Amino acid sequence: MAYWEDIFKKLVSHCKEYGFVFPSSEIYDGLGAVYDYGQNGVELKNNIKQYWWDSMTLLNENVVGIDAAIFMHPTIWKASGHVDAFNDLLIDNKDSKRRYRVDLLIEEQIAKYDNKISKEIERAAKCFGDAFDKQKFCKTNPFVLENIGKKEALCTRFAQASSKNNLEELHQIITDYGIVCPISGTNNWTNVRRFNLMFSTKIGSTADAKMEIYLRPETAQGIFANFLNVQKSGRMKIPFGIAQIGKAFRNEIVTRQFIFRMREFEQMEMQFFVRPGEEFQWFERWKQIRMKWHKALGLGNHKYRFHDHNRLAHYANAATDIEFEMPFGFKEVEGIHSRTDFDLNNHEKYSGKKIRFFDPNINKSYVPYVIETSIGLDRIFLSILAGSYCKEILKGKDSRVVLKLPPALAPVKLAILPLVRKDGFPEKAREIMDQLKVSFRCQYDEKDSIGKRYRRQDAIGTPYCATIDQNTLDHDQLTIRSRDTMEQEHISIDWLQKVIADKVNIKSLLKQIMK
Amino acid sequence: MAYWEDIFKKLVSHCKEYGFVFPSSEIYDGLGAVYDYGQNGVELKNNIKQYWWDSMTLLNENVVGIDAAIFMHPTIWKASGHVDAFNDLLIDNKDSKRRYRVDLLIEEQIAKYDNKISKEIERAAKCFGDAFDKQKFCKTNPFVLENIGKKEALCTRFAQASSKNNLEELHQIITDYGIVCPISGTNNWTNVRRFNLMFSTKIGSTADAKMEIYLRPETAQGIFANFLNVQKSGRMKIPFGIAQIGKAFRNEIVTRQFIFRMREFEQMEMQFFVRPGEEFQWFERWKQIRMKWHKALGLGNHKYRFHDHNRLAHYANAATDIEFEMPFGFKEVEGIHSRTDFDLNNHEKYSGKKIRFFDPNINKSYVPYVIETSIGLDRIFLSILAGSYCKEILKGKDSRVVLKLPPALAPVKLAILPLVRKDGFPEKAREIMDQLKVSFRCQYDEKDSIGKRYRRQDAIGTPYCATIDQNTLDHDQLTIRSRDTMEQEHISIDWLQKVIADKVNIKSLLKQIMK
Repeated sequence: MAYWEDIFKKLVSHCKEYGFVFPSSEIYDGLGAVYDYGQNGVELKNNIKQYWWDSMTLLNENVVGIDAAIFMHPTIWKASGHVDAFNDLLIDNKDSKRRYRVDLLIEEQIAKYDNKISKEIERAAKCFGDAFDKQKFCKTNPFVLENIGKKEALCTRFAQASSKNNLEELHQIITDYGIVCPISGTNNWTNVRRFNLMFSTKIGSTADAKMEIYLRPETAQGIFANFLNVQKSGRMKIPFGIAQIGKAFRNEIVTRQFIFRMREFEQMEMQFFVRPGEEFQWFERWKQIRMKWHKALGLGNHKYRFHDHNRLAHYANAATDIEFEMPFGFKEVEGIHSRTDFDLNNHEKYSGKKIRFFDPNINKSYVPYVIETSIGLDRIFLSILAGSYCKEILKGKDSRVVLKLPPALAPVKLAILPLVRKDGFPEKAREIMDQLKVSFRCQYDEKDSIGKRYRRQDAIGTPYCATIDQNTLDHDQLTIRSRDTMEQEHISIDWLQKVIADKVNIKSLLKQIMK
Repeated sequence: MAYWEDIFKKLVSHCKEYGFVFPSSEIYDGLGAVYDYGQNGVELKNNIKQYWWDSMTLLNENVVGIDAAIFMHPTIWKASGHVDAFNDLLIDNKDSKRRYRVDLLIEEQIAKYDNKISKEIERAAKCFGDAFDKQKFCKTNPFVLENIGKKEALCTRFAQASSKNNLEELHQIITDYGIVCPISGTNNWTNVRRFNLMFSTKIGSTADAKMEIYLRPETAQGIFANFLNVQKSGRMKIPFGIAQIGKAFRNEIVTRQFIFRMREFEQMEMQFFVRPGEEFQWFERWKQIRMKWHKALGLGNHKYRFHDHNRLAHYANAATDIEFEMPFGFKEVEGIHSRTDFDLNNHEKYSGKKIRFFDPNINKSYVPYVIETSIGLDRIFLSILAGSYCKEILKGKDSRVVLKLPPALAPVKLAILPLVRKDGFPEKAREIMDQLKVSFRCQYDEKDSIGKRYRRQDAIGTPYCATIDQNTLDHDQLTIRSRDTMEQEHISIDWLQKVIADKVNIKSLLKQIMK
């Protein structure tokens, strides 16, 4: 198993063991690519939401929120292009009756050629030992040459057929290259068909009022559809933004990626409306603002990078990803897109309503351009967990697994631990807890040794533990242990709240990005 | 129009005008019984959520949260009884092809008899003047007697047929009483049929892996399905609770009730797991806790009452509603139910997994009993708005519409208003805003007269307005105007945050219910 696969597997089981993420409907053997957030997961997720929401709507005078419904009028998805173009290409094997994604079948075939080539090289390298010249070998060995040739021809045909959306040619490729179904082993395929990724359902009950609607595949359209209502009722002036957090749904075909790619997922999107022609300067500005937001989490500035898109979606004139270095490589955690006036324009066309802003500064009415910042909440949740998870070797062969979560995002801020379960320590501990619990999330734990209790708190990322002992009863003093340094400090009860509150509050992150 | 209808209509248009609630997909002429929350609505809603969540999970050491997916394994809805029994009874008129809810058709017929009776009484009262004896008239007038008789007979048949779920008898009633379709005017009806209220969709793509699933009609089952995972990973001991906020979906047939009854709605539910036999004492305890929570909002203690259920759902052995007095009468805002072990028991049966808790105190394993507290978030949102909305007559024929929202729930906490748009006031105002905006939501407004700006803030429920004028520049003093009293006070900038922060924070509500 590769190093990252091992880490990933450990992370998944850590998530279940410590109440972060459970497979959905697990007692019924689960539901594919759907997950539930447990008692610690929901707190971490809520904290991420609050950090994003406050950074958008508290810090920016001209960004306001909305919460649009998942159900929307179906014509919205006509206008947005999702009804016609939000497809995967699928093919069925006639013998096994199994269905596959065409792109994955072909990519697997390409991987097979790569594999054949590598194995041949490996075999030769073993035979020739130190004398082996890889480059020369590849240029002369007939078997390797043949497979390189086949692979390159396949790649070219595949790229051409894909870009032209040529379904017959894609079917022909699968036939010509003898790609077989892993179940039946045959090359007996149906035509290639489009499969729309939107979930649909029926609303209403009367025969004529019954309507097929979709579960939104993105939250953005809820913002576009409400542009006029928000602009008018909020007296907003361009430039301004609308932020939203909410669920979206995509019937993904292949999904064995934990919460990185789910069929039900949550987005945090902000659409910023600007004057046409000013979109690139705002695109740059939001790139910087968003990067600062991520880096303030303190997971390591070197773990972030921009990845500009070379091929743009049909609605965009600029796009970049913010990527985060996960154990399995750099992965997208946020997309920033200059969406032009594509969406608002189409909603004008399909709804017949004018969606314009009269700009008093230039005395002109126009359809605004849009800069979008879009985060997959589950994905950033996973990236923060992955970036915080570590196993540390301690003195004396001991070790610990610790989640070095940003304290403001940690599910529990302070564990309150009576040294032993007697001598009035538990009562004193609960008294302290009652004073603090309104201010931040505390967890009381009296079971097992202090060491074991520390480990449990490390595993869920609790930044501070307070131990209550005789010293607490006699002198109102307690011991504070810090998660990251494992150092202990004696402080008075009166100081406890002041010392901790600031560090564990979302405001501490907001203040950083305001600097 | 009745008084309450007028108030309700005004509230609905206020919601739209001031960015609280918009009809969903309005530019496409809306989607039935679905609404979006605007820039002020989303803040009010988030504040209600936070108050509930913190009161559950911060104040109760033994209540933790989760966030389960909307998609769940379909067998869950078999086990819960929703697949078989979550139905409305519908009937189609063969001529108009329109479909109706059977209970509403019959209730309308009952209302018609009531109406006839009232009109006859009214007519007679006018004729007889002061000499009119209503009781005697009702006992002797043949027309009134006939209609009372018909009504009572209908009520009895309807109650019996409903309780036995006798579809043929319901059809017979509609035929016998000559109930006609309001469109076609005919009494030509199909059979009565069951219509399941769950929305369904299909997940997966391969022919054999494609599965019909439901959008959850309640959040509670997500808690039951995760009982074991939370109990084990959180080391929870009975009694303990699991809280959840999330969307649920019901394909309601008749829904012209604004956000009071929607097809997509949000619930705040907590399931509290107890030892069998102890459910009634916990039921009583949670009734008190929940009532205190509502009353802490300060909308008037007399506006709340319990309404115990006489007829219990099949899974319950005790149930009560907390009702709030809306302009249109007392309405349920929360349900508290003793659900016995019905759900966990059924999940044991259907999943084949043991769902037990080993109780070390009695050395016994059992399926826990459940006390549920369940709030419709949209409904409580509406009740808080309705309870806060008022029109006040002021001196000199002036009047104002003001939302007297609990300050901790208000969307905007402080409006920052430069007296005029010059003399350095706007710059000073923005400087103050930059200092405060991390602590609570501020809104800057420089347009129109101070009076108009006050009215705009009144209309969205902002508890405080700060005016910046020459005194601010010269002596660091500003004028604070309070929404409810409209009184003004001069305070120094340094004091501004201290004076306001405590009053507008959710913690102020939490502290009240901790008393």
